Amino acid sequence: MSRGVFITLEGGDGSGKTTQAELLREWLSGEGRTVVRTREPGGTEVGVEIREIVLHHRGDISPRAEALLYAADRAHHVATVVRPALERGEIVIQDRYIDSSVAYQGVGRVLDPEAVRGLSEWATEGLAPDLTILLDLDADAARGRLDEARTRYDRLEAEASEFHDRVRAAYLGLAEAEPGRFLVVDASRPVDEIAGDIRGRVASLL
Amino acid sequence: MSRGVFITLEGGDGSGKTTQAELLREWLSGEGRTVVRTREPGGTEVGVEIREIVLHHRGDISPRAEALLYAADRAHHVATVVRPALERGEIVIQDRYIDSSVAYQGVGRVLDPEAVRGLSEWATEGLAPDLTILLDLDADAARGRLDEARTRYDRLEAEASEFHDRVRAAYLGLAEAEPGRFLVVDASRPVDEIAGDIRGRVASLL
Repeated sequence: MSRGVFITLEGGDGSGKTTQAELLREWLSGEGRTVVRTREPGGTEVGVEIREIVLHHRGDISPRAEALLYAADRAHHVATVVRPALERGEIVIQDRYIDSSVAYQGVGRVLDPEAVRGLSEWATEGLAPDLTILLDLDADAARGRLDEARTRYDRLEAEASEFHDRVRAAYLGLAEAEPGRFLVVDASRPVDEIAGDIRGRVASLL
Repeated sequence: MSRGVFITLEGGDGSGKTTQAELLREWLSGEGRTVVRTREPGGTEVGVEIREIVLHHRGDISPRAEALLYAADRAHHVATVVRPALERGEIVIQDRYIDSSVAYQGVGRVLDPEAVRGLSEWATEGLAPDLTILLDLDADAARGRLDEARTRYDRLEAEASEFHDRVRAAYLGLAEAEPGRFLVVDASRPVDEIAGDIRGRVASLL
């Protein structure tokens, strides 16, 4: 089976995932690689509909329902976008994956993190990233960046700063548990420096 | 804790679940009981949005994503409608519940039925019905009724008759495994006879 490379970017909102994903895509494309840039939630048409419910539904969604909606988005996305690309030998660069669910739903929403992970593993038939880049930034710095960008806050961004602190700690715990899969980057540094570190790690992977 | 009674109706499309649920509600209301009539999928506002994706999305939805969407609808519905009603001591009469997922997704879609059940049990924190009424009808009879009604077929109704045969067999297997919870009714009989059988069983439960 021809097998591509699956790279995920993780971190809080405002940590620079989209910027770094785009710089990585440009570099890899320049190297002649075929790259698929995607994201969760919302990387498919079905996913866009699910993302709309999760992020913009008026009123509360029960925590278990939220975790299951993310898992449903993930199941469809992996089956129809990620796996086919990897089977064609391409490089998939993806904003958010299972670690997001474990960090946000498992810890932030006070569900059992292992149960939340189990949902995603069932959803994806156990597909794990080859490399996960964690853009680590404290909650106050991230909020400052979002304020500057003046974008509309969605439901999750509007959660209290204490929530984001717990998510950050959860991410760092996940990285510590799987040092071989994670590259942890201090996201408060200049964009080009961060991009250089990421290129170095990806180059060693290819 | 004051505890109500949770009654679910199961069976293929066209087997008469809605008619019998309504007759049961009328009878119980006449007896002075407080009844909540509800359904899955789509028993909440979030659920209506999920139901729209599952039943009317153009194009395929991956089997695991479909199972997770049903579980998400169920999690939100149980947390916000069913459990609160049962805790108030009311009677909940519901079209479709976990057995539908096991029969349709678990068997019909060729996923592991126990995994599909596990999703729903996690979604509902293990809430089981006190009584499940299975309206049993062979696939040809059910299709005949739907043709007469001339309603628009949704995605599931358009599946092949062979699929419905497997769902029917799955339902009967579930009923055989839990005879104490199930009342299996021959749904080809007159509506009033069926309603009488259901009233008899529900009366013995109250």
